[in-house]
Amino acid sequence: MIMSKPSGQRLQAAALPDFVLRQFDRHSSEHDHRQLYRILQTGIRESVLPAGLKLLPTRVLAQVLGIARNTVVHVYEQLALEGYVQADVGRGTFVAAAGPRLVDRARRTPGTAAPMRRVWLSQRGNRLVQEAGASQLQWGAFTPGVPEVRMFPAQVWTRLQARAWRAATPQQLSYATGPGDADLRAAVTDYLQGTRGVVCTPEQVVITSGTQQSLQLVAQLLADPGDAVWLEDPGYWGARSVFRAMGLHLEPVGVDGEGLAPTPEQLQRPPRAMFVSPSHQYPTGALMSHGRRRQLLEYAAVHGVWVIEDDYDSEFRYGARPLPALQGLDEQGRVVYLGTFSKTLFPAMRLAYLVLPPDLVDSFARALNELFREGQPLQQAVLARFLAEGHYASHIRRMRAVYGARHDALIHAIDRHFGSRLPVIGGDAGLHLVLGLPRDVDDQALAQQVLRAGVATRPLSLYHLVQPASSKGLLLGYGAVREEEIASNFALLAKAVQGLL
Amino acid sequence: MIMSKPSGQRLQAAALPDFVLRQFDRHSSEHDHRQLYRILQTGIRESVLPAGLKLLPTRVLAQVLGIARNTVVHVYEQLALEGYVQADVGRGTFVAAAGPRLVDRARRTPGTAAPMRRVWLSQRGNRLVQEAGASQLQWGAFTPGVPEVRMFPAQVWTRLQARAWRAATPQQLSYATGPGDADLRAAVTDYLQGTRGVVCTPEQVVITSGTQQSLQLVAQLLADPGDAVWLEDPGYWGARSVFRAMGLHLEPVGVDGEGLAPTPEQLQRPPRAMFVSPSHQYPTGALMSHGRRRQLLEYAAVHGVWVIEDDYDSEFRYGARPLPALQGLDEQGRVVYLGTFSKTLFPAMRLAYLVLPPDLVDSFARALNELFREGQPLQQAVLARFLAEGHYASHIRRMRAVYGARHDALIHAIDRHFGSRLPVIGGDAGLHLVLGLPRDVDDQALAQQVLRAGVATRPLSLYHLVQPASSKGLLLGYGAVREEEIASNFALLAKAVQGLL
Repeated sequence: MIMSKPSGQRLQAAALPDFVLRQFDRHSSEHDHRQLYRILQTGIRESVLPAGLKLLPTRVLAQVLGIARNTVVHVYEQLALEGYVQADVGRGTFVAAAGPRLVDRARRTPGTAAPMRRVWLSQRGNRLVQEAGASQLQWGAFTPGVPEVRMFPAQVWTRLQARAWRAATPQQLSYATGPGDADLRAAVTDYLQGTRGVVCTPEQVVITSGTQQSLQLVAQLLADPGDAVWLEDPGYWGARSVFRAMGLHLEPVGVDGEGLAPTPEQLQRPPRAMFVSPSHQYPTGALMSHGRRRQLLEYAAVHGVWVIEDDYDSEFRYGARPLPALQGLDEQGRVVYLGTFSKTLFPAMRLAYLVLPPDLVDSFARALNELFREGQPLQQAVLARFLAEGHYASHIRRMRAVYGARHDALIHAIDRHFGSRLPVIGGDAGLHLVLGLPRDVDDQALAQQVLRAGVATRPLSLYHLVQPASSKGLLLGYGAVREEEIASNFALLAKAVQGLL
Repeated sequence: MIMSKPSGQRLQAAALPDFVLRQFDRHSSEHDHRQLYRILQTGIRESVLPAGLKLLPTRVLAQVLGIARNTVVHVYEQLALEGYVQADVGRGTFVAAAGPRLVDRARRTPGTAAPMRRVWLSQRGNRLVQEAGASQLQWGAFTPGVPEVRMFPAQVWTRLQARAWRAATPQQLSYATGPGDADLRAAVTDYLQGTRGVVCTPEQVVITSGTQQSLQLVAQLLADPGDAVWLEDPGYWGARSVFRAMGLHLEPVGVDGEGLAPTPEQLQRPPRAMFVSPSHQYPTGALMSHGRRRQLLEYAAVHGVWVIEDDYDSEFRYGARPLPALQGLDEQGRVVYLGTFSKTLFPAMRLAYLVLPPDLVDSFARALNELFREGQPLQQAVLARFLAEGHYASHIRRMRAVYGARHDALIHAIDRHFGSRLPVIGGDAGLHLVLGLPRDVDDQALAQQVLRAGVATRPLSLYHLVQPASSKGLLLGYGAVREEEIASNFALLAKAVQGLL
């Protein structure tokens, strides 16, 4: 038996009182009931009390131990309920047999070796873990993709939170149903119409717990295993991981000066979906031109391709006005628009949204409830108030100035150390820029070296699906570093880079 | 062109000033810059201003409109950046062509009909939505699976929440990394060791955002598409949905008086995993015997099968003591243990946990970060304090008494209306019981009828994977209904049932 202790510990029926007596301590702080239960259960589990052993009658054991008979009766009942013992009316109570073996032990002779087939991760699990892109560092200079959470108006937030708790309905504390808080969906609609040129009604908005969850719903509902999805190369690693985990075939598509640029061969094989970040390509910051947008939308409409628009970091733009979303151009209902509060407020909030063609909303809401039982309705209500009271708009305004100053400080630092020797890519929007490097540089080794100097960055080559990567560089985030700390941190980084050039 | 308005709206170059003048309102509250941008962009998007049209020189347009020339310059620059117009040095600024068509329009002759291939949901998406089990009702008598959220100590919680915000580190507001808050993992370990007989260290605990997420990680990391998983029949619909969505082959396994009871044929084909609720089978409340537990564990060890233990509702037990978890018997590291705070505190909290064999922890944490970027670190810290300060234990104690009284009231009501004519199944634990019905009753139609009378229930047949279902009944939850409201609600239900019997 797999679970039994080495032999020689089994007791004869007569020895039972000794076994229990030896272990039972009448002066223990442990309750009699609990103590006796534990001793008997352990004895049975470890096969010290073997199957078939007859237990002492409750009256006798109670006498031997000097405890109430009822206590013993209850312990026996509990053990019977759990299947440790069996009561045989008129004969007494016996330690239960483990029952007929499920495994035919005769087949497990020494000659067959390895009795245990120790299987660990699945193939997809292995791949997911091996190729994981998420960094274990999510704070500090120059971690990309993290906003300045220290300036989040926590007091306002906790005040709204406390108020929401006082007014909480049971439904807000239960499982969420449907597409999300109605006020939040309306506030998101207003915001997106006013600032992003998104054309939608509140009924098209579904609230999720983050872009990763939005992507899982998209992959699950709009594509089957083996279906192709076009991904920008370089592009967002998180979409790559989710789509691959959901069994999709990843087709990398290059990006030129106008945005996603499929080859003629790729155009011959329409994918099930394409994932694009037209207003601020991730991670290069490139803009997709109006012409390319219309071409892609037309192609999508004709071939029934879903266009997944990640409107990443579109709130923060330091030069020109923010660009309107691709979604606003879509007249055929092919665009699924993704947005998040992770970058504008704080990532740990875990609230994001999808804007969907009207026909898809019910299905997405149902899948959301079914696969995740998600929603945090109370948190959604707090956020809805936060938007409605104008805190969201003023926080973004404030942060745009803060990030603008940090952006300038970083540009200035790069300029001071490298002049125009290294290109700066995508520096006019978002929370990061890319310090371009010559293609023969090992940017991953460099990032490691920089990290040892105490500065976090992310190598650009990691964002490429096609390897070896066609571009090299370091992503530098300025969300998690104060303006006055940028120069000194960049000096540390510059030293490592200069050693390599 | 897909995007163009009906013909006849295109303007000649000379007409441009008219078009703009007609729409431009110098007394509008809208900023000049924004207004001009909007008018020109709309004109181009709607092809009223056709490709190739030369825009008026900035100086001229500024004069015509009576606004600052700089404003016009900025608007042209913005439009150029977005690809709406192109500046041709020395010649002027022109509305950009949409560029070479991606779609060969010549092939889209009228004869080919249906120019749009309108593809909607994926096959798996369709199936997920069609077979969704999550109810759209998550509150009220007798919604199963929902705890009494009105008695949650909200004041304690908001106090701890405010305190956590004041002490929040940036890391707690950023993306979560690793397996979860260290204090919470330690508190969960203490709790599980003390009350559930789980054998683990805090290092084995991974915090997730709910059991559905735990199941997604399990399915993704431990099984590949097409791998078989054994499911209790009847069993938890949510596991069914997640496993199917992740491409697993669902193998229903019957449940007898001792728990999961695979047939000899099923035993010949070991699955990749089995999903069991041994301490309180969902939804029947049956207990898995000690003997069966040891058999399944041995079988799992020999054949490399993962045992997914859903320790559902184990906190609430009104008769015998709670049963220890299967995990505590596992000496071969085959058990993945699932627990949640949804039933003990409130579902909208979205915090749950996995207890894993040590070798799996790193992979699960990495996949969690990669697929979900999840965690709510601050919320986890609040919950850790809630446990450490003893609020959790005392809330469970209090609720056990509350639920016990409701349980008795419901049993009493059933008895008053039906005596022993209908069996009550699984009534000694959890937050629901099952009112058994004869096998020829259509329990789904009955549930609909009861719902029209204002009472929510769930038909037992929905929990069966094998159809027609081998058992019928109604799940009655008593978490979301006050003790004094049970009799009146049950009377409504009884009337509908009696009409059918």
